[in-house]
Amino acid sequence: MPQTLAELSDRLNVFRDERDWAQFQGLKNLIVSLNLESAELLELTQWKDDAAVERLIGDPGFRQKLEEETADVLLYLLMICERSGIDLAVAAAKKIDLNATKYPVDKSRGNSKKYTEL
Amino acid sequence: MPQTLAELSDRLNVFRDERDWAQFQGLKNLIVSLNLESAELLELTQWKDDAAVERLIGDPGFRQKLEEETADVLLYLLMICERSGIDLAVAAAKKIDLNATKYPVDKSRGNSKKYTEL
Amino acid sequence: MPQTLAELSDRLNVFRDERDWAQFQGLKNLIVSLNLESAELLELTQWKDDAAVERLIGDPGFRQKLEEETADVLLYLLMICERSGIDLAVAAAKKIDLNATKYPVDKSRGNSKKYTEL
Amino acid sequence: MPQTLAELSDRLNVFRDERDWAQFQGLKNLIVSLNLESAELLELTQWKDDAAVERLIGDPGFRQKLEEETADVLLYLLMICERSGIDLAVAAAKKIDLNATKYPVDKSRGNSKKYTEL
Repeated sequence: MPQTLAELSDRLNVFRDERDWAQFQGLKNLIVSLNLESAELLELTQWKDDAAVERLIGDPGFRQKLEEETADVLLYLLMICERSGIDLAVAAAKKIDLNATKYPVDKSRGNSKKYTEL
Repeated sequence: MPQTLAELSDRLNVFRDERDWAQFQGLKNLIVSLNLESAELLELTQWKDDAAVERLIGDPGFRQKLEEETADVLLYLLMICERSGIDLAVAAAKKIDLNATKYPVDKSRGNSKKYTEL
Repeated sequence: MPQTLAELSDRLNVFRDERDWAQFQGLKNLIVSLNLESAELLELTQWKDDAAVERLIGDPGFRQKLEEETADVLLYLLMICERSGIDLAVAAAKKIDLNATKYPVDKSRGNSKKYTEL
Repeated sequence: MPQTLAELSDRLNVFRDERDWAQFQGLKNLIVSLNLESAELLELTQWKDDAAVERLIGDPGFRQKLEEETADVLLYLLMICERSGIDLAVAAAKKIDLNATKYPVDKSRGNSKKYTEL
């Protein structure tokens, strides 16, 4: 099993090149596809309130779909980063640090306001 | 620097708990937020054709935004998986295998048709 | 005040042509922009549960944003239809009729299942 | 055939009440569904560049789907406005006027910059 984002990205490149698909996978197309996969995740919550979605976490059929759709989002995200030369693990770690400065513990503890409103 | 998805997820949990934010981060809310971050990525391509977006990859300002938005998508994806007990690295590896059976090399080589049309 | 979709669409064409914007408003670009405006509408609900969103309907600031974002979605939708020669009022009326056959009253009354599951 | 947004909205209310669906159609749910329909419109452009999408306008199968998806977006938009007491025709006309002040002809003619960058 691949453990790191780099290993997953390498497997995706092999998959892509075996099918000669790099020609279709321009950055804009990949970003559009990421949005479509995010929407498929959102569709799993359609007509369900927050509590109903929480309850469904324990449902095997729902969970199977959730696993597939979250995986799809990650795969497109890795393709976007590969296409544009971004190290996603590094970018994510930096973003956590940035968020920590935008949302200081003392101001944001226990409230969900956006940093622009703090 | 965190190297694996599990390490990034652990850092996110610390960030969340320092701010007492688990109360807001129900699964439906996290999925909505993931969609909003995907849309911010899409906004980077607004009014630009495919070639223009490819050219922007070399632009430092664009790249900075791309790094931040791809990071945001990953962070919400990790929170979704943490909330629902999904191992994202395993799910992604399984999905690559599943895609390999849905898109056999001989049928899908050099074309972008959906598996339902192959 | 314009009363019909056709009158609104005519005003949009004047607005566009005064600014020489037809060159940017290809169908794909318009559809991407429609998705961005839909996401801005979704952002108004971020971190809020169903009941909280219902309560906000009476809040003047929220309502102002809701009016602007729903308007933006309609404006892009009209531009999409103008670009592709679709009469949106006719298409919508036909779709209501189609939905009536997909969701017969006796099978769908009081449940939110998709027609594929009825 | 309904000609105005108000007539279409009235037909939707009849459709909804015959099925006893008002109970599901809270504002947040309707906004989520609008986003899903917008994504279905976006899916029609997946893996296609701008020129390919323009060419498809003349394709009867594509056009049929485009009519159905644009109709779906309008129907949810009307339900959102009905739920929140917004007159969509008035809101759209006001937004065109607001856009005219945000995008003065002399500054925005022939360029696609956002008003914040003008």
